[in-house]
This record gives sequence, C-alpha cells and structure tokens, in this order.
Amino acid sequence: MPAKGADVSATISHDADVLIIGGGVIGLAIGWRAAQQGLRVVIADPDPGLGATHAAAGMLTPIAEAAYAERELFALGQESLRRYPEFIAELERAAGRPVGFRSGGTLQVAYDSDDLAVLDELRALQDSFGVTTRQLTARQCREAEPMLDPSIRGGMLTTGDGSVDPRLLATALLQAATAAGARHVPLRATEILTSGGRAAGAAMADGSQLAAGAVVLAAGWQSGTLAGLPAGEAPPVRPVKGQILRLQSTAATSAAGLPPGLLQRTVRGIVRGSSVYLVPRDSGELVIGATQEELGADTAVTAGGLWELLRDARTLIPGITELAFGDVVAGLRPGTPDNAPVLGPSGLPGLVLATGHFRAGVLLAPVTADTIAHYLLTGEPDPLWPAFAPARFRPGADRPGADPPGSGRPAATLGARA
Amino acid sequence: MPAKGADVSATISHDADVLIIGGGVIGLAIGWRAAQQGLRVVIADPDPGLGATHAAAGMLTPIAEAAYAERELFALGQESLRRYPEFIAELERAAGRPVGFRSGGTLQVAYDSDDLAVLDELRALQDSFGVTTRQLTARQCREAEPMLDPSIRGGMLTTGDGSVDPRLLATALLQAATAAGARHVPLRATEILTSGGRAAGAAMADGSQLAAGAVVLAAGWQSGTLAGLPAGEAPPVRPVKGQILRLQSTAATSAAGLPPGLLQRTVRGIVRGSSVYLVPRDSGELVIGATQEELGADTAVTAGGLWELLRDARTLIPGITELAFGDVVAGLRPGTPDNAPVLGPSGLPGLVLATGHFRAGVLLAPVTADTIAHYLLTGEPDPLWPAFAPARFRPGADRPGADPPGSGRPAATLGARA
Repeated sequence: MPAKGADVSATISHDADVLIIGGGVIGLAIGWRAAQQGLRVVIADPDPGLGATHAAAGMLTPIAEAAYAERELFALGQESLRRYPEFIAELERAAGRPVGFRSGGTLQVAYDSDDLAVLDELRALQDSFGVTTRQLTARQCREAEPMLDPSIRGGMLTTGDGSVDPRLLATALLQAATAAGARHVPLRATEILTSGGRAAGAAMADGSQLAAGAVVLAAGWQSGTLAGLPAGEAPPVRPVKGQILRLQSTAATSAAGLPPGLLQRTVRGIVRGSSVYLVPRDSGELVIGATQEELGADTAVTAGGLWELLRDARTLIPGITELAFGDVVAGLRPGTPDNAPVLGPSGLPGLVLATGHFRAGVLLAPVTADTIAHYLLTGEPDPLWPAFAPARFRPGADRPGADPPGSGRPAATLGARA
Repeated sequence: MPAKGADVSATISHDADVLIIGGGVIGLAIGWRAAQQGLRVVIADPDPGLGATHAAAGMLTPIAEAAYAERELFALGQESLRRYPEFIAELERAAGRPVGFRSGGTLQVAYDSDDLAVLDELRALQDSFGVTTRQLTARQCREAEPMLDPSIRGGMLTTGDGSVDPRLLATALLQAATAAGARHVPLRATEILTSGGRAAGAAMADGSQLAAGAVVLAAGWQSGTLAGLPAGEAPPVRPVKGQILRLQSTAATSAAGLPPGLLQRTVRGIVRGSSVYLVPRDSGELVIGATQEELGADTAVTAGGLWELLRDARTLIPGITELAFGDVVAGLRPGTPDNAPVLGPSGLPGLVLATGHFRAGVLLAPVTADTIAHYLLTGEPDPLWPAFAPARFRPGADRPGADPPGSGRPAATLGARA
C-alpha cells in the first residue's frame, strides 16, 4: 500500500470510471445519471441518504433561495425545477416506487403587520426576478388554506413550485442507480488519491482503496475535510445545522375530512420576524422546518429548536396540535461563503466538485446530476456553471465565475461502456 | 385442550406456584419478592417494562397523589417511600446495577399570583396530612434552584421524597427476579383459566397454557380486559394517557457547571393553572411530564402534548432550551374510579389483584410487592389493604374497604420450596 497522501501507483487498475464520494441526493442523482449513460460508477457512503438529505423538507422553491442569494442561483433553481417532473417520472419508473412529488405551489403568509411589510419586500424581490405571484388578503389565504389561524394578515401565492419527499427520493435514487449498474460501497472515503497529477480514486475508512478514472466529491459539509486535496482545492463548505420536525395526520384528522398533513400545499410563514415552513405530503406527513444554526458539526436536536418550530407552526396552523409526533432530526447542510453550490472541475484534474448546495440540494439535484454526468461523459462544462465554479473561492479569484485553470478540460477520457 | 373459558382439567400439573400476568414495575417487583421467598414464579409479558412504566417519570412523592385522592392512599405511598431505600439497596445488589435512586426532595413553585394561591391551598392540604413543608420566597426558590425563571412567585420545599429511573428499575427488577429463580415468559396472557372454582393459570396469546397455584393480575390498564374473569371480578381500570418528554444535558451545559438535568431536585410547577414537573437524573436526563388525557387506548404522542410540556417547562426553567432532545413517549396508566390501586384477593379464589396504580405505580412498587408476596406465601392479607380491596367496586359494595367474600382466605396453599 502506498504511503498516505502519496501518488498511487499508475498500475492500479480502475475499479470504476467514476467514484462518487457521498451518497446524499446529489451524489446519488449523479450516480444514477452517470450509470444511465453507461459509465461504471461507484458510490461510496456508509449511510446513503442519512446526511443533510435526511433532514431536508424537500421544498422545490427556487425563489425561496433567491431571497437570500443571487440571480444566478435563482436561475439554476428554476432550471432544476423545470427538469423536475421528467426527472421524477423517469426515476419512479426506474425505481418502481413513488417519491412524493407534488407541484401545488406555495402560499406565503405574514402573521403581523411587521411580518406583512417583510412579505411585501419579498414580493417586490420576486417580481424583479420575474416570478409570478398573486397577492392575497387574509380572507383569501384562509380560503386557500382553511386551517390557517384567523389572525394572519395576508399572503401571496406562488404557483409552479412544489415539493418532494427527500427520504423517498434518496431511496429511489439509490435503487435506480444500482439498477442502472452503479455499485454502492458502504464505506466513508478518507483521502483523495492521485496518480500522475490526477485524481485517481480514494482511500476508504477500512484502509482499502478504490481506483477510478474520475472522482466526484459530493460529500456535503464534509467535502472540504478529506485528506489529499491539493492546497486551495478544498471547497470552503461549512456545516449549517437545521432542525426539522415531522408530524403525522391521525385517524381523527382524516375522519374530520382534513387533507393529509392538514394543508393543500406548502405554507411558508413569517411569524413575528421568525421564518417557518410547513410542507404537507400525501402520506399525511407534515414537515415543519427549519432552524438554522452555525454550531460546527453538532447534530443534537435541542429542546429550544423543537419549541421554536412548534411555537411558530402552531401560531400559523393551530390545528397542528392534533397531529401525531413523528420525529425530529438535525442535519448539517453544506454552506458556502456565498450560499451557492460548487459545481464543476476542480484545479486537480480528474476531480469534479458537486457540493455546497446548502439548503437547496433537493431542488438542485436534477440540474446538478444532469450537468455533472454530461461533463463526465463528454468533458463539456455546462453553460450554467461559471457562477458556481470552484475557482471563485480560490485565493486571488477576482470574481465569481472566473474560469479556473483547466476548468474546460475533461476530467478524464471516460467514454461509455461498449 | 379444553374449550375456551372452560375449567381446565384438574390434572394439569402446575408450571409454577404463582403466575404473574404483567411485567411492569408492579408485576416485576412482586415476581422478584415472591421468588426471593422461594415461590416458583412465572412472569408473563411480551414487553416487560414497556407499558406505563416506560412513560413514568419515577417521582417518589406520596403527597403529590394525596392532593387528588384520599388519606389512605397517602399513607400507602408514605409507607412505600419508607421502604424505598432498603428496597433499592437490595435490588441494586441483586441486579448488580444502579437504578438512579435519588432522595433530594421536591421543590414546588408557582408562576403567577393565581398559581401561588393554588400552591397555598396545596400547602394547607399537605400540612393537614402531616407533611413537613417549608414555604419559600421567590428568592429562596432561586437560591435552591438557580435555573428557575426570575418571574416565579414563590414555592415550597418538601424533603424526604425523591425519584428513581423507572426504565432502569424495570430492567433491574427483571434481572433480580430472574436471578432469584423467576421465569419470564414473553407472551401476552389472554384468558384466566379456572379449575374447581379456583384460578389455575392463564391461556397465552400463542394458544399455550400456563398452570399455576395462584394468579396475580398486574396487567395495568389491560387488567380488566382478560377473558375468563368471573362477572364482577374484572377490576374497573381504564387507560389514562400520559405524555412525557426526556431531555438531556449536553457537553456545553456540563462545561458551564450546571448540574445534570439542570436541577438539584424534582421541581413541580403550576404555570398559569397548568401542572408540570421536571425530574433530573444523575445521568443528565431531565424528564418533563405529564399530560393527562382520557382517550382510550391511544398511545400517539401529539404535537400539542409535546408543545404544552415544552411551553410550561420553559416558562419555569428557560435554560431547558439548551438541552438535547431525548425522546417523547405516551403511556397508558391504569386509572380507577377513585384513583387508588386495587390490591389483594379477588372474589375468585386463587386470583390476586395488583393493579390500578394509576400514576403511582413506581412509588407503590415496594409496598405492593412486599405485601402481595407475603400474602402469596402466608395467606395473610396486609393491614394496609382494606381501603384498596377489589370488592369496593363490586356492585352493591357500600364502602371502600368493605371485606370482599373470601378476602381473608389464602389464594392457595403454596408454601416455600423446600
């Protein structure tokens, strides 16, 4: 075995065309798409789908991210949302199971007059982005969602967006990827291995090595922590904790004729300056999120986080108290300095980054998977990528989207399996 | 196999001297004590310790029950509390494991002036029962428990009571009972079997039968539902749902020098008319309870129950928001018409009742176990029992404590193993 950090022997035979490090929705979706195109794919993750994916609500709402970040990120989200219906239809056929995709739009509501002012600003922003919203009176909000508390002040309706169940999505993606020929290795990657100045695989936590023609780093908030990344190439991702609560409709709420999860569509609220969202699922689940805390790699669910979620959700929808408790989990989302993902080839040939998706991993999975898989096959970077290039965080990078050295270069000559 | 409900053949050989139906703290403690005395014991329960015991906080506070019920119940609780230290010492030796016994007293606090008036009434009641309490100013309360919210209005301190961890207690009891020779059968009993007009065993959910010289019915809220109970002999127990939340100290709260579970002792509070209690454990756990609902056999944890617990606990101890979420469970306590347990021989010879302990099963386990085991061995009913006699609920019973037919009669001629 070569010394840790050293080049692996060029004589190592490739286990795969592509090694994907990380089996969240991003890594799994890339694995599925790449395997579909005939590449020999290995996905390494000890617990696929149990990272940030497990604690995601699954909102497909590009504008929700745009309120905080840039126009390019909104455009990327819109493009991914556009691809979603076909992506899901194909996935459900491949995996033979539903993933809870819904496209009923989002109702945003304000609790008090200060909250309404914030919502008005948000609507102006959305208008400037070209998102069609409809302003609703309090009465119209309650007509749309009868379970809303009578005291809400008003809202706005966005059509066209939706939601998906990230846990079902991850399960289906792993199944579809495997069915398409990808291999899942239930191990944690600890080190990027190089050979002849190229990424050539990874060392695993059990000491074994996986050799591959290209390596995709999709390990969420841990993407920057692997050994073997050349100086300046570790993506600047940090863990951003999010706590999320799942409730469940009961026989009594169903008997009362209430919709699954009490709501017709996703409801996002501003409650005395605090943000909360409620995502209903056909299964009767109502997902309530999310706190956002910068506490390092801490995944403890706190009583305070749980209390805030219940407080704000109950203020908007008093009827949630009748729902059954499901679970509460904390996940670590991969945040970046500009809240946007890191997509495309790194400065190390053969190493491709697909990480830093922060709170938008589920939304961005289709566009990330399609474009990364296309790049792996053809060496062609996607026109959507420049704003998300890894090089934008490199010391001395002068603007987002600056072309990194070698960014236009294929990661490897992979070719489809014959 | 005899027909369902029929007398079993008198030729059936006894599997045991005593069959105990139900392996909560009551059944397990009786099983341990009876086995210690040389009786051949079988305890039947598919999930020992996972009923009401699992959702109990483990407060050992006789006066807490007396506030709602009778003087006799208080006396029974006091007697059980008196036995607790020795019971625990012996149990921990026998099982070789600790059960989290603490005896630091209870601080009762009032949140607003209305709550303080309720607390004053409670103190008058406790005084009339001869319980020594010390009235505390708000400042003294905070000296005793620095994590209390500054806005509480006052309180009172009761010394001498304590708490135990019911989950550890159940595990230790099962272990000690087994070590003493008791046999655990992981099956649910479905029917009391009789022979010659006496209880002679029980039919199990898998169709098998267990024969025994005496049967102890300690099946909590399900004690009244078994087939084969003669008319009028089914104890009138009903399920009373209680939801309970467990939080946990973190590295941060420990580093801040806060005690395990943030508190020195049990804190009971009245918060805007609502009751809440917080029980700290040496392990760092803080148990918060409990809701009380009459909803039949429903064990769903509701968002509303969880929210109420968090709301009231946080009002008293704002620092709980820093604790980690542990779990939240609902249990069904066996309630009776007068909130007191049902102890002693039933009208069916050979059938002994030890059920209906409502919220006091953990507190009452030692006295219940000691007296029932003594009765099984000697046929002598305990002088504490008359107020808790099964016959008090029989149609036509004119007063609590009326002697039921045959109540002074030994359940069986058991004798100790030679």
